[in-house]
Amino acid sequence: MRIKYKPWAKDYIANNKQLFIDEDIEGETLLKRLQKFKKVEMEVGTGKGQFLMAKAEQNLDTLYIGIEKFPSIIVNVSDKIEEKTNVDGGESVENILLYCGDVMNLSKSSILRGKIDTIYLNFSDPWPKKRHIKRRLTSPKFLEVYDELLKESGRIEQKTDNDGLFDYSIVNIANAKNFKLEEVFVNLHDTDKENVMTEYEKKFSEKGYTIKYLAAKKAKNRE
Amino acid sequence: MRIKYKPWAKDYIANNKQLFIDEDIEGETLLKRLQKFKKVEMEVGTGKGQFLMAKAEQNLDTLYIGIEKFPSIIVNVSDKIEEKTNVDGGESVENILLYCGDVMNLSKSSILRGKIDTIYLNFSDPWPKKRHIKRRLTSPKFLEVYDELLKESGRIEQKTDNDGLFDYSIVNIANAKNFKLEEVFVNLHDTDKENVMTEYEKKFSEKGYTIKYLAAKKAKNRE
Repeated sequence: MRIKYKPWAKDYIANNKQLFIDEDIEGETLLKRLQKFKKVEMEVGTGKGQFLMAKAEQNLDTLYIGIEKFPSIIVNVSDKIEEKTNVDGGESVENILLYCGDVMNLSKSSILRGKIDTIYLNFSDPWPKKRHIKRRLTSPKFLEVYDELLKESGRIEQKTDNDGLFDYSIVNIANAKNFKLEEVFVNLHDTDKENVMTEYEKKFSEKGYTIKYLAAKKAKNRE
Repeated sequence: MRIKYKPWAKDYIANNKQLFIDEDIEGETLLKRLQKFKKVEMEVGTGKGQFLMAKAEQNLDTLYIGIEKFPSIIVNVSDKIEEKTNVDGGESVENILLYCGDVMNLSKSSILRGKIDTIYLNFSDPWPKKRHIKRRLTSPKFLEVYDELLKESGRIEQKTDNDGLFDYSIVNIANAKNFKLEEVFVNLHDTDKENVMTEYEKKFSEKGYTIKYLAAKKAKNRE
């Protein structure tokens, strides 16, 4: 993704507490918002937020938390939400929250821990070099973080066009004691699985890349 | 694979006891042959035997057992072996045995049980229809059979160009208590993994099909 540096992004995020979870991850505001919804889903690396917004529109009883490290990227999502609010006649989008930072920080929140129904990993950075392997979002360290965030029967869903990342994810998840691999599709678009496309997915599948998908369920103390 | 019916195949197999394991799976001949080699590997669905023969040529300390249900197909392998024997000046191929039948029968042999190092499943019939799912060579029933045949640290290796079969295999093996998924490549030819191509693999990868690969290790009582 091309990133245009936006010097105002950080301040904008800090001042927009209706939409952004701030460093106060134990705050009353976060708790109150959570309690309004039946389900909570998270996208790690939400990018420009197309997937998150489509999901939020389809499932009004679910709170969507979009996580993105880069301020200059995540403000694209808030831009879109503002635009939508204006077009739709001023009704604000209630079921989206954004967090600019690392999912590892969020997992420290006692408000969020054990509350998440689904964690989406869409077209994450494949980190192809061996020395960066720990940064892949399905490395054992991250799987532990998801385990902490997810409910008892919570799930991870991953989509990617990257073979190396997919191979890595499958083997890691298959051998993780706290997850059970439920579904694998090496060519998602060739199945009848319901699917909300991301911006990236649309572009790259049109170029002929095959999109891979997996789903894993949290399975405490699996035998 | 196109099968030309060969009415003489059955008799030929019955009379060629040097190369074919017959119904007497507890026989002395089988035992003696096994004891000559350091390792034993098996290919389930050996087809015309190109993979089996290449492997046997590369690894003279390993006995290769090729299993194929159809008499009219398996005689292609014996034809090739005879041809090779004649070309190479009469030295017979010692490290290949063939079995015309079902791997489930072979697993009843006390001589073979617990003796196999690797079981290869190359381009098995994908049985795409739901009602035929049990016939897939990675169904739970077949995984049990492989478990019986394999040594403690034995392995399964599967190659296929079929997405549905591959998806099915991964999920099944990942959730099998007696196997541990070790390696997955959604595009084998794009990796530097050592690989002996089958006849089918050569033809279909040239047509643009991607070849998928997985390896699983036997893991008794895995946690």
